[in-house]
Amino acid sequence: MVMASAICAPTFLSTPVSSTKSSIYTTSSSLASQSKTPKLHLPKAAPPLGPSLFSPWSGLKHLGIISITPKSLNSGIDTRYTSPRTVGDTYLKIKTKQSIDRSSTSSSSSVVAMSSTAGQVIKCKAAVAWEAGKPLVIEEVEVAPPQANEARVKILFTSLCHTDVYFWEAKGQTPLFPRIFGHEAGGIVESVGEGVTDLKPGDHVLPVFTGECKECRHCKSEESNMCDLLRINTDRGVMLSDGKTRFSKNGQPIYHFVGTSTFSEYTVVHVGCLIKINPAAPLDKVCVLSCGISTGLGATLNVAKPKKGQSVAVFGLGAVGLAAAEGARIAGASRIIGVDLNSSRFEEAKKFGVTEFVNPKDHDKPIQQVLAEMTDGGVDRAVECTGSIQAMISAFECVHDGWGVAVLVGVPNRDDLFKTHPINVLNERTLKGTFFGNYKPRTDIPDVVEKYMNKELELDKFITHSVTFPEINKAFEYLLHAKSIRCIIRMDA
Amino acid sequence: MVMASAICAPTFLSTPVSSTKSSIYTTSSSLASQSKTPKLHLPKAAPPLGPSLFSPWSGLKHLGIISITPKSLNSGIDTRYTSPRTVGDTYLKIKTKQSIDRSSTSSSSSVVAMSSTAGQVIKCKAAVAWEAGKPLVIEEVEVAPPQANEARVKILFTSLCHTDVYFWEAKGQTPLFPRIFGHEAGGIVESVGEGVTDLKPGDHVLPVFTGECKECRHCKSEESNMCDLLRINTDRGVMLSDGKTRFSKNGQPIYHFVGTSTFSEYTVVHVGCLIKINPAAPLDKVCVLSCGISTGLGATLNVAKPKKGQSVAVFGLGAVGLAAAEGARIAGASRIIGVDLNSSRFEEAKKFGVTEFVNPKDHDKPIQQVLAEMTDGGVDRAVECTGSIQAMISAFECVHDGWGVAVLVGVPNRDDLFKTHPINVLNERTLKGTFFGNYKPRTDIPDVVEKYMNKELELDKFITHSVTFPEINKAFEYLLHAKSIRCIIRMDA
Repeated sequence: MVMASAICAPTFLSTPVSSTKSSIYTTSSSLASQSKTPKLHLPKAAPPLGPSLFSPWSGLKHLGIISITPKSLNSGIDTRYTSPRTVGDTYLKIKTKQSIDRSSTSSSSSVVAMSSTAGQVIKCKAAVAWEAGKPLVIEEVEVAPPQANEARVKILFTSLCHTDVYFWEAKGQTPLFPRIFGHEAGGIVESVGEGVTDLKPGDHVLPVFTGECKECRHCKSEESNMCDLLRINTDRGVMLSDGKTRFSKNGQPIYHFVGTSTFSEYTVVHVGCLIKINPAAPLDKVCVLSCGISTGLGATLNVAKPKKGQSVAVFGLGAVGLAAAEGARIAGASRIIGVDLNSSRFEEAKKFGVTEFVNPKDHDKPIQQVLAEMTDGGVDRAVECTGSIQAMISAFECVHDGWGVAVLVGVPNRDDLFKTHPINVLNERTLKGTFFGNYKPRTDIPDVVEKYMNKELELDKFITHSVTFPEINKAFEYLLHAKSIRCIIRMDA
Repeated sequence: MVMASAICAPTFLSTPVSSTKSSIYTTSSSLASQSKTPKLHLPKAAPPLGPSLFSPWSGLKHLGIISITPKSLNSGIDTRYTSPRTVGDTYLKIKTKQSIDRSSTSSSSSVVAMSSTAGQVIKCKAAVAWEAGKPLVIEEVEVAPPQANEARVKILFTSLCHTDVYFWEAKGQTPLFPRIFGHEAGGIVESVGEGVTDLKPGDHVLPVFTGECKECRHCKSEESNMCDLLRINTDRGVMLSDGKTRFSKNGQPIYHFVGTSTFSEYTVVHVGCLIKINPAAPLDKVCVLSCGISTGLGATLNVAKPKKGQSVAVFGLGAVGLAAAEGARIAGASRIIGVDLNSSRFEEAKKFGVTEFVNPKDHDKPIQQVLAEMTDGGVDRAVECTGSIQAMISAFECVHDGWGVAVLVGVPNRDDLFKTHPINVLNERTLKGTFFGNYKPRTDIPDVVEKYMNKELELDKFITHSVTFPEINKAFEYLLHAKSIRCIIRMDA
């Protein structure tokens, strides 16, 4: 229930994790990973659950995730480009008509079809994290041109999400520095690499931490968005195609983060991780759809799927939880019950359709019981957005038998075990997990942008703060002290 | 994975069971039951999970179920009817055309609209369980006429299910004897009580252990079949309307079982627990749809919902598991992987579409790993039909991330806890439980009968044995020694 753990961009296992140790079903002490095409450098074998579960894969302390460091790929920046040029202001910006007058800070520029910097190394400003937990430093860095299946993007607006902060703090995971964080953003394609046909310079895009190759079993499945090729990788730090970074400063490589690295005026992204959107959409608003807001919204709309008039409990009223509430509002839920340990969130949550509030601290009985009593046997749907294992269990056990659906969104601690009496399942409850709100990014998010454009989805209320790029460390302060839901960093301000 | 535990008629909690004890969410040690309309005599409060969870409610040792004994209702048999008549052969039987020639033992009789015994106490033969674990005794008993919202049914064929055996053994639950067991059956309405308009004498019916009142929230919900009024009650032993039994012998009350008590030539059933079916359907075959076969079939077709070409793992190859496999066959599954500790079941299982077999005893690693390796990362769907908690966990962890769905059918032990790492959920797996295959009995089962009639569903292969009514104890022997899938007891033979 602590919002700091309600991060939205976990790295997920592609192999079931066994929690069983002492039966005919689990006589072995290891689970081999399931090799797939394309391979993502998964280790050959993973140990069973326990204190050492994730340690062979990474030093991640808090996330139950595979953390992959292909050291063989960390060979440094590509040095083919020997004549970097500073190009920050060389673009011909053209005013585009904003079809909807939403904000004076709306993005208003587009880039002409061919940039003069295509194929060149760009020099630009980036906020570099040189070491864990230390303030980012605005540096002039070099950004190499995109290779095959990549595009270079001019970032106009970026937001800050807990996942950036988590990996910046590096309190458990393998540290990978210097690094450029950032994964919620909006920008414009500057140039594209070889073979890229889906995107062209000038296209408006949202970089996204989890991609859609459109070729793998997951992309071809109607039921999954967990692309085999471009599924989030929090530890790679280099481009997938050649294992090299596209960032450097004076020859020193600077690593990527989840394939996006949007805290830079220019970044290079695999085209499978770029969502082409309506150029009329204000990038300073829709940039928040790259991660947390879509995660929460989709958890409700795509997975919990409340019917009009049903009740929905939302555990955790941070950005993801509020987006889940927004989804419930859009779905026509009759009651949206916010659950959070921090009562100060409740007033703000009303703006997101939350109708009732429950603080577990105010009760001396299990919160699932409190919710069941409030709702004649249980809520119709519950969405857990905290990462607390107790909240996960409560979210499942508070849904009504016969039809209740609980959806887990939050990322758990590595040693957590989800426990419940199986009769709670047999009573026709459903437990589902979701990743990025089950949205296929390139296929589905453009439609979410349209929901905003036609005023079905309210995004502005998520954006509580705005800073200039040089002030980026303020955004960290806001988030760390729970002052902001989303703080937009204006790259060109 | 032991078939003896793959029973299909559990009593389910209407209140979430908390498994959490030590967090802000679970600071209380008790969970109050959620009162609903209509009330089913639930206790005011239930204790948390643990050794004593179910003991205040019943002496049930093996089932995680609420066992409700409304002692105030056990006031004995209604003695208003002082002139019982033996009517066994007084019906005018008329031959009906069997539209499908399936079996020489097909039911072939119908009853004329008005019986001469309406309103009278009937004397007939019943197999009475006088005490736990002792052979049933064929006795002449009295059967009182049906009261309001009840019908008296002439049972022609009944089958034996593990649930009968479980409660007959009474190894843990509150003993309630003498009792007439039986809940998978086919019969013909003899007479109806006051206010009954949906059924009339002569209608062909399947009595069912869980009813459908069509008025409560569950019946009105598209998503549930767990009727509030007529949900299974394994411990009541008397009729819902007046708390009395309709059976007696020489004035001594004999208790009902799950509202059906089909081991009797005549029984009285709440009309909400009577499925009116196509009179052309052979009752000696479709009687098995009253419980286990529908439970397994629906678990696959209604809940797991495999798509054509997908893979399905079935844990436990008893009647329920084989019915789950039959559902997978009907759905067009490409691979149906049977998992059972008893390899002798494998040959028989081929008849049910099972294409591959896995015996956990043959492997020294977790069976979920074996299945994931067989299926490039996991099966698409898994259906657990054993009641083993380890099988439940394995069934969940063996489904593919992104789209895998696991369905729990088997009834767990009361002290079991379902445990898994939450990342297994977050990876977009779904866990669902089902009760009676999610079929609304009166609304949906007639269509299942039609599936049999049009040869889409194969029922005959489930029926491996047949005995006469006086031989009923043989059916118990067959089931206890895993010789039969279903043994039909021919009441009029």
